[in-house]
Amino acid sequence: MAEQQAENIVYVGKKPSMSYVLAVITQFTNGQKEVIVKARGRAISKAVDVAEVVRRKFMKDVKIKKIETDTEERELEDGRKVNVSTITIVLTK
Amino acid sequence: MAEQQAENIVYVGKKPSMSYVLAVITQFTNGQKEVIVKARGRAISKAVDVAEVVRRKFMKDVKIKKIETDTEERELEDGRKVNVSTITIVLTK
Repeated sequence: MAEQQAENIVYVGKKPSMSYVLAVITQFTNGQKEVIVKARGRAISKAVDVAEVVRRKFMKDVKIKKIETDTEERELEDGRKVNVSTITIVLTK
Repeated sequence: MAEQQAENIVYVGKKPSMSYVLAVITQFTNGQKEVIVKARGRAISKAVDVAEVVRRKFMKDVKIKKIETDTEERELEDGRKVNVSTITIVLTK
């Protein structure tokens, strides 16, 4: 009955930035000391926006602890493989 | 006669990723020990791609030393002010 998906990870995708900002704020408000923002490909810019808006506008006590990038290999429907960049932004309070 | 613009900074914008990848490789090949990749707004995703492609595909001895994000205020033509996120990726050899 273990919870497999970590609760303090926010995956940034196609929704407006503000919905991810609210997700991050909710995590911290619920007592998380650390929230991890992850994105891949074009959503990387939005993940940076999310982290910046959280710490500059809403929660001035939140800091960026670490930013890491990586490369993932994804397989397309036709079987071709492409590389996609990823970002992981660790926010702490 | 001082050189004002730092030579080891690559600003990522609207050109294809590979032209920035080549710019970074050229800097290292010319003897730079550190090359800084900067971008703002939507080009942030491309800057991450550039750093990842350089270190994974072309120069395996290059490491990401530091990644920082920030927020800049820009004034639009009509005088309105908007915030734009920026990224700075420091690559070292």
